[in-house]
Amino acid sequence: MDFASDNASGASPEVMAAIVAANAGFAPAYGADPWTQAAERRIADVFERECAVFLVATGTASNALALASLTPPWGAAFCHPDSHVMGDECGAPEFFSAGAKLVPVGGEGGKIDAGALREALDAFPRGVAKLVQPSALSLSQATESGSLYTPDEVAGLAGLAHERGVGVHMDGARFANALVALGCTPAQLTWRAGVDVLSLGASKNGTLACEAVVIFDPARAQDLVFRRKRSGHTLSKGRLLGAQMEAWLRDGHWLALARHANDCAAQLAAGLRDAPGVRTPWPTAVNEVFAVLPGAVDAALRAAGARYYDWPARRLPAALAPRGAERFVRLVTSFATSPQDVARFVEIAAGAGKD
Amino acid sequence: MDFASDNASGASPEVMAAIVAANAGFAPAYGADPWTQAAERRIADVFERECAVFLVATGTASNALALASLTPPWGAAFCHPDSHVMGDECGAPEFFSAGAKLVPVGGEGGKIDAGALREALDAFPRGVAKLVQPSALSLSQATESGSLYTPDEVAGLAGLAHERGVGVHMDGARFANALVALGCTPAQLTWRAGVDVLSLGASKNGTLACEAVVIFDPARAQDLVFRRKRSGHTLSKGRLLGAQMEAWLRDGHWLALARHANDCAAQLAAGLRDAPGVRTPWPTAVNEVFAVLPGAVDAALRAAGARYYDWPARRLPAALAPRGAERFVRLVTSFATSPQDVARFVEIAAGAGKD
Amino acid sequence: MDFASDNASGASPEVMAAIVAANAGFAPAYGADPWTQAAERRIADVFERECAVFLVATGTASNALALASLTPPWGAAFCHPDSHVMGDECGAPEFFSAGAKLVPVGGEGGKIDAGALREALDAFPRGVAKLVQPSALSLSQATESGSLYTPDEVAGLAGLAHERGVGVHMDGARFANALVALGCTPAQLTWRAGVDVLSLGASKNGTLACEAVVIFDPARAQDLVFRRKRSGHTLSKGRLLGAQMEAWLRDGHWLALARHANDCAAQLAAGLRDAPGVRTPWPTAVNEVFAVLPGAVDAALRAAGARYYDWPARRLPAALAPRGAERFVRLVTSFATSPQDVARFVEIAAGAGKD
Amino acid sequence: MDFASDNASGASPEVMAAIVAANAGFAPAYGADPWTQAAERRIADVFERECAVFLVATGTASNALALASLTPPWGAAFCHPDSHVMGDECGAPEFFSAGAKLVPVGGEGGKIDAGALREALDAFPRGVAKLVQPSALSLSQATESGSLYTPDEVAGLAGLAHERGVGVHMDGARFANALVALGCTPAQLTWRAGVDVLSLGASKNGTLACEAVVIFDPARAQDLVFRRKRSGHTLSKGRLLGAQMEAWLRDGHWLALARHANDCAAQLAAGLRDAPGVRTPWPTAVNEVFAVLPGAVDAALRAAGARYYDWPARRLPAALAPRGAERFVRLVTSFATSPQDVARFVEIAAGAGKD
Repeated sequence: MDFASDNASGASPEVMAAIVAANAGFAPAYGADPWTQAAERRIADVFERECAVFLVATGTASNALALASLTPPWGAAFCHPDSHVMGDECGAPEFFSAGAKLVPVGGEGGKIDAGALREALDAFPRGVAKLVQPSALSLSQATESGSLYTPDEVAGLAGLAHERGVGVHMDGARFANALVALGCTPAQLTWRAGVDVLSLGASKNGTLACEAVVIFDPARAQDLVFRRKRSGHTLSKGRLLGAQMEAWLRDGHWLALARHANDCAAQLAAGLRDAPGVRTPWPTAVNEVFAVLPGAVDAALRAAGARYYDWPARRLPAALAPRGAERFVRLVTSFATSPQDVARFVEIAAGAGKD
Repeated sequence: MDFASDNASGASPEVMAAIVAANAGFAPAYGADPWTQAAERRIADVFERECAVFLVATGTASNALALASLTPPWGAAFCHPDSHVMGDECGAPEFFSAGAKLVPVGGEGGKIDAGALREALDAFPRGVAKLVQPSALSLSQATESGSLYTPDEVAGLAGLAHERGVGVHMDGARFANALVALGCTPAQLTWRAGVDVLSLGASKNGTLACEAVVIFDPARAQDLVFRRKRSGHTLSKGRLLGAQMEAWLRDGHWLALARHANDCAAQLAAGLRDAPGVRTPWPTAVNEVFAVLPGAVDAALRAAGARYYDWPARRLPAALAPRGAERFVRLVTSFATSPQDVARFVEIAAGAGKD
Repeated sequence: MDFASDNASGASPEVMAAIVAANAGFAPAYGADPWTQAAERRIADVFERECAVFLVATGTASNALALASLTPPWGAAFCHPDSHVMGDECGAPEFFSAGAKLVPVGGEGGKIDAGALREALDAFPRGVAKLVQPSALSLSQATESGSLYTPDEVAGLAGLAHERGVGVHMDGARFANALVALGCTPAQLTWRAGVDVLSLGASKNGTLACEAVVIFDPARAQDLVFRRKRSGHTLSKGRLLGAQMEAWLRDGHWLALARHANDCAAQLAAGLRDAPGVRTPWPTAVNEVFAVLPGAVDAALRAAGARYYDWPARRLPAALAPRGAERFVRLVTSFATSPQDVARFVEIAAGAGKD
Repeated sequence: MDFASDNASGASPEVMAAIVAANAGFAPAYGADPWTQAAERRIADVFERECAVFLVATGTASNALALASLTPPWGAAFCHPDSHVMGDECGAPEFFSAGAKLVPVGGEGGKIDAGALREALDAFPRGVAKLVQPSALSLSQATESGSLYTPDEVAGLAGLAHERGVGVHMDGARFANALVALGCTPAQLTWRAGVDVLSLGASKNGTLACEAVVIFDPARAQDLVFRRKRSGHTLSKGRLLGAQMEAWLRDGHWLALARHANDCAAQLAAGLRDAPGVRTPWPTAVNEVFAVLPGAVDAALRAAGARYYDWPARRLPAALAPRGAERFVRLVTSFATSPQDVARFVEIAAGAGKD
């Protein structure tokens, strides 16, 4: 019963097989190999247009490179206060951008509010020397609270950004989960809605270590080859990345994996909602369930070996925050989650809540 | 006949099997997994002491993190002008250190000369505000010219460095090849000789993507966990790195792989020395052969599908530099090189040189 | 009637005379001159202890150097959202620290609230790799809203910081104004209350361009000589800075200048409070008056040639924010403000408000 | 007898008077004052074209801002190994550029050799990811060895740079001295010869603390306003800089000051050449005299209170290097040097050499 993170599973069998197959023989280094090239073609197919693609091994690298491509050292990148780029990367965007400022823009349920974004943009008029210059908007899709931006919402926020010359980044660590939940195409959710650079995440959804920075305007991509090399993210045996990404995108495999994870989360959320004393403060749109558990339920689950993380209660509206012995927790499912584990977890929760 | 780089091969079957095995099931993320811990224990065993270990996926990351741990932004890191950190990492050490200066210190055959090092250190007296402060000495072992420092030579250079409070880094991208060639222990070649931080390379010698920053004085290691995270080099599924490193070090596998590569290079060098018109300006100590090839030999080899790189002729003493149609080339062998390819290469070279 | 900024005046006659006197003859460069040394002695006298002193020409440099001395690139510096370091220096602290994060900690009237600080510190437990590490607390004294921390308040906040190993910086751009208003000694307001590094500002209060980074624990100061040089802030003719600082501190000149500025502000605030339709939402503690002016008053003042800046209304509590044609403005007095100008300003405001 | 540096004198009386005059009354802050605007117009007049001008207080800031405007973090700036940017600024160019690499390009007498530059450029072909990208050429005018590039030489080197898309910076710390010696116009020596950005130095030649970054292509200047602010080099009371620069350039004052300094150096060099045992290894073109002094001469001069610095003997060709008790020294004259001091210095040298 491991619901700690979608990082807790390995690669899918299909992806693992692709790594093994690609391992044989000699190949050119540093991304000039055929697997990397095939992966780039698949990304172009999936997104229905040419893009500049930079494969890397971690989501932090992908986000930080993407933001650095949009934000000069004296730039401001607007992001949600709960976003991964703001709080979970030990300042990687600041490092890669040589000192840009991440400006928090709030909103309910992990989503940036359009009014708050407009206000934030107004607070940084372009050309005033004492102010960092508005440069990037970063949207997490899905968000760190498991919520989603619809294509229209993305387009609305991106429109505000573009009016001010601000580029739009999407942190797609759970992009496949979002796609499946929203039922739209990759193009609709990204460049057609105004996204300039996507961090396409695969590591949380079926690969071992593979992410892609996807730049929809190739003209903006010319520095990234140097930024990637200089940050140590150009793998010498690039086939490791190329093989993973190619197999992951092949025949809708990525979407099938995400669908499974989402379905498990939906089942988990439904079960918990019925469990006595348990509250699920946010809707479950993708593969993350947030729950306020009674102390006894939490204790019973952990005693049974369940793994999951406490989540910062300050992210909840006061009315929904845990009281007394209650715990606010995050439960994450993945392609590897077994429905049996979900059922057992729900059963324990329901049983413990009754007491 | 791929002699382009030891990056052109994949992982050894043993290492690949370890990755596959580690892929199954759930595991804690970010290096808290059992494979990473086992790898750390193996490194302590192999080096005969406790060390702080930071696994990363690339040699550039390993070198840059290691140098940044020794060099403040206003520091000088002394390295050979032909070294990888100086010329092949697009300024990664400068990036990770927030702008330190790499100061070239020359010497024959890719090795830093003790007299030149003393002079360079003298040129940067500590405490003079206008001067970057002497902070790190970086030695490549083996060097980019395929030469070696003996443990005594390491100790001599490290002694000069330590006298001035300068830390010692070893770029061990080909550390196993050096060990096998020198016939000494890992401890003798590193901390016993004064090395403070080792970049232990495995990617060129049997893993897919795995390197370790090994810090012998754990007190100097405390910042690296943040530096690694912030640079995007903390893999979420850390087992990918742990499994490779553990399998690679198990039962002397790393040394066996390196021995094969070195033996192939020795065979190649011996064959080329006898080939008409071919010169090998430097001795072949590890798995790199440097040769000046007559134009016809080069053409015949490439026509036969051999892959290898031209090498900068300016690195050779004038007396040995290529003349006319001659080409100065580097040939690299690896654990995956087949003796048949070596023999065929030599045969073609010998044949073409006769004409 | 220039109330735009305390930067709008020049140097006091005494300070100007000192510059002229110091200009004669030859002197050692880069701060080895007698004026700089005399300034350092004066600072030690004034603060009743040895300190490491680094003179620079701008407040931005002083703040950024001070914060960089406390905050590693992966560090968090806690500061008020309205503080100068957060919003008015185009990311200088991020630049000098190589990418640290400034974390906003709120509070009424420009002052950091102790509860908010405790929460912020709690949100960054030390040693968690994904989190920037709590490193510095920056307090503005006086604040950007013209309010003050008492020595006890400084000690309270500094105590919270020190409990977590967080260093304490004071942005003293208006330190003399604060001293005069609080009636305490420099020592009481700084190191005795837990301040580790002070940015002692003089440029807003009687010098042309002179600030001092004052480090109370000389052991923490050793890198600053390199940071200052490397950032281009070591003046070759250091006497320019030394002469200003020495003359400014001599015989309580700095306090006399600040007292005049504070008195003018008090007179201005008192006059405005009586003017029909004018509101002063915050108390006037030092040399800044914040006022909500009716549109007609604002128009009359500007027509009469008065200079002052609009101030961001979002900094006011909603209940006090300007409505309709009202303007929220900041009025700053300095050592050079004439009581006549103050009286005239008040008279125009009172007259226009009546109509 | 202070020949330590042209930094050892203060401002000229004319410049000092301008500072005093500008000090009176109120003025807009941050460079919006009339003195700064007048200085900008003077620079446009003197250089016979519109330029973007950024006044700062130090030469290090001026050089580092200029180089950062040309060099991305992954860029290479080519400069002489003895240049100020390479060796005397504690890594300021690396800091301001966020980690660019300064690549040494040699040449006799402090001047970059065209052949060496061509080789260096060839070693950094554009677009190879592992290589820092060729971005800037920095020429010191006059050089740190007191030598000069003629306009034709500047044009030749700039042409090589521009062919590769490399921008050209001139470190003009002693630009006025160079102009006077070469007898050409400011335009001839800069943009007409291919210089893109000039660091126009005044602090060594009659101001207290004033330098200008002059960008001849205003399109390249748009980031500098943020870079300057962010590095703390935007003085709040900008009139201090504007007044100095305006007075310095007015009516050829800067050239008159430089001419005096050059004349004193010529007189000094002539005298020393005749002194027994003294050698002047390099010609004296501007206001620096380099001499190898017999030990007794050196001792006699220092005993008489003369101030000057030893200079690194490694900068001399071996045949000219000091032997035995000889000292290699640098003697610098300035606008404030008295001919009497020069005569006395020569007399002591001549007398001591006879013994």
